[in-house]
Amino acid sequence: MNDFTYYNPTKIEFGKDKENKIGEYIKDSGVQSVLLVYGTGSIKQSGLYEKVIASLNKNGIKFQELAGVVSNPLLSKVNEGIELVDEYKLDAVLGVGGGSVVDSAKAIAAGAKYNGDVWDFYVGKVQISEALPVFTVMTLSAAASEMNGNSVVTNDETRQKYSVGSVLLNPVVSVINPELMATVSQEYLAYSAVDVIAHSIEVYFTATDHPKFNSRIVESIIKSIMETTEALIKDPNDYDARGEFAWVAIQALNGLTPSGTGGGNFPNHMIEHSLSALYNVAHGAGLAVVIPAWMKWYKEQNLPQFTRFAKEIFDVDNADEGIKRLESWFSKIGAPVTLNEAGIPNDAIEELSENASGLAKVWGMGESYSKEVIKEILQKAQ
Amino acid sequence: MNDFTYYNPTKIEFGKDKENKIGEYIKDSGVQSVLLVYGTGSIKQSGLYEKVIASLNKNGIKFQELAGVVSNPLLSKVNEGIELVDEYKLDAVLGVGGGSVVDSAKAIAAGAKYNGDVWDFYVGKVQISEALPVFTVMTLSAAASEMNGNSVVTNDETRQKYSVGSVLLNPVVSVINPELMATVSQEYLAYSAVDVIAHSIEVYFTATDHPKFNSRIVESIIKSIMETTEALIKDPNDYDARGEFAWVAIQALNGLTPSGTGGGNFPNHMIEHSLSALYNVAHGAGLAVVIPAWMKWYKEQNLPQFTRFAKEIFDVDNADEGIKRLESWFSKIGAPVTLNEAGIPNDAIEELSENASGLAKVWGMGESYSKEVIKEILQKAQ
Repeated sequence: MNDFTYYNPTKIEFGKDKENKIGEYIKDSGVQSVLLVYGTGSIKQSGLYEKVIASLNKNGIKFQELAGVVSNPLLSKVNEGIELVDEYKLDAVLGVGGGSVVDSAKAIAAGAKYNGDVWDFYVGKVQISEALPVFTVMTLSAAASEMNGNSVVTNDETRQKYSVGSVLLNPVVSVINPELMATVSQEYLAYSAVDVIAHSIEVYFTATDHPKFNSRIVESIIKSIMETTEALIKDPNDYDARGEFAWVAIQALNGLTPSGTGGGNFPNHMIEHSLSALYNVAHGAGLAVVIPAWMKWYKEQNLPQFTRFAKEIFDVDNADEGIKRLESWFSKIGAPVTLNEAGIPNDAIEELSENASGLAKVWGMGESYSKEVIKEILQKAQ
Repeated sequence: MNDFTYYNPTKIEFGKDKENKIGEYIKDSGVQSVLLVYGTGSIKQSGLYEKVIASLNKNGIKFQELAGVVSNPLLSKVNEGIELVDEYKLDAVLGVGGGSVVDSAKAIAAGAKYNGDVWDFYVGKVQISEALPVFTVMTLSAAASEMNGNSVVTNDETRQKYSVGSVLLNPVVSVINPELMATVSQEYLAYSAVDVIAHSIEVYFTATDHPKFNSRIVESIIKSIMETTEALIKDPNDYDARGEFAWVAIQALNGLTPSGTGGGNFPNHMIEHSLSALYNVAHGAGLAVVIPAWMKWYKEQNLPQFTRFAKEIFDVDNADEGIKRLESWFSKIGAPVTLNEAGIPNDAIEELSENASGLAKVWGMGESYSKEVIKEILQKAQ
């Protein structure tokens, strides 16, 4: 059992119609104006936009808008947001959407309080010491960004997809209404499931210590995500499955699972970030490609935990079979498991490895993950 | 999946020697003076008292002391504390001890900001709307009071053991160093284990809805508590087991397990409170008596969940056998499972049922738990 600090001050407002109270939650936090950040328009089609605006108006919250956040969100859009906050002297940032929108909202919240280039935080040049309060209304569950301080942004100029983490970026209040997620496509549901599994297994396999409770929590997360994903493929309107999926996704990356393990690291995310930065594949799709390859490469370094995983998740007795079953399950739900299936040519491996090894250094994993090692892993994804 | 709000802003500082930083944590929160609350002297014998004082002095935190909190903590002691806070105009309350000390610290924190009798909160006459910040250094893990807003206090005059809950009472920072818990007697370790299991199963069995993830978390808690208790009986200095026990105990009552279930209720705690209020038995000992009796009485009301419990925890196929195994396990670790084993005569059932039915009403369970029903349950504990 390793030392740790656990601190997660985000309030989760979970349930039907809670988006109609977002203005009230914001007002109760002493905030008078927000930058409303959203994506490419689905919240207008669904009617969510109107509801949020109505709630803001009802509670006297002034707002400006920043639309057009894309998946694998871009630094250029973040900088637009920071300018709006400055210009209108806004108090807070409200993200309405999925992980990309919330990650952008957090970046804006940090950048608005910093007298320099917000990208400095992402390359580790400076630490975040102040940020505007962030609020969210979620339309997709995967990133757990709604209950953590992480933000992942892609620098459009350098094609680096980098991240930052600070409890100052934890949303003050996040609204999770599973009904708002019912229109997510099966494709994105699958990618979301893979993302949650990725969040769970990174530390599960790479930590220096494995308290059994932590392993059990991770296994509970994976079992529930697999079950609820299958239920939602059958019936996208299964509210209970949608709700359980949403809550479980949060638990995978809100600080609970690594507490006491020593922390581990995030090699699958590190490598995947290159796939989405260079080929703009969806994050979950990229992870589905990287994870089985990484597992095959890494398993000898922690065979007992891989054997445990095989037994607990798939009730099979050896590590290789566990990896094979997970890969098959990714395929079954419609996620790509090779580079080609994700639309990436095999000869991109050189370039991907180069890009990823840059991030490996920023994340302090440069010694274990050289360009050569990353190449070796990606070759298993051909 | 039911609607819920999850909000737990307590920061946990977990690990070796962290008690030496308590003054720093308090100072970082902007607090300049505290009431130091502790029990009957064990922190002086262990040297913890000196460490805490040194850390407070080092960080310029002024303090006054309130010693002598007993288990099943008393309202009279709470009132002493409130007077001290008033007299010395203290900013915050620091509890150093187990659940009773922390529960008393919370009561003082609420009472110091209230212009009336603090007992009003416990009988539900008024809601807590303000409280001083609370800090803790834990020497016993069981109540999870270190990461929730609950406080249980016994009114020495009326012999009512009642409780209150408010997020305003969540500790700001709680220090958990498993080493500080190594001297807990085997007897109290057993009672603590029973208490954690009780926190887990109340909602697990009584909720209106059972998302599988919640059931899995509860089962993970119970399995880890049973394993680590057995490890600690063999070797009280097993740091990893002590640490896992401490962290798991917190998860059982920090808001995680009931989220989405609809909430359930706490009949075992309700009945037990009478045992400890009238016969001053340790809370965990009282629960070990009540739980098997209640399970036998209640099981038909939720047979699928009792069957699941039997399978998941003890790998047996029927509900009755699951209850029997749990009762045997309580006995095995040294907890009483009948009234007589807890030093309570069978003819106390009348008086206990009368007392408990009063609390049932305060907790909104009066309709399901009349005096007659409670008698019927306690008769199974003879």
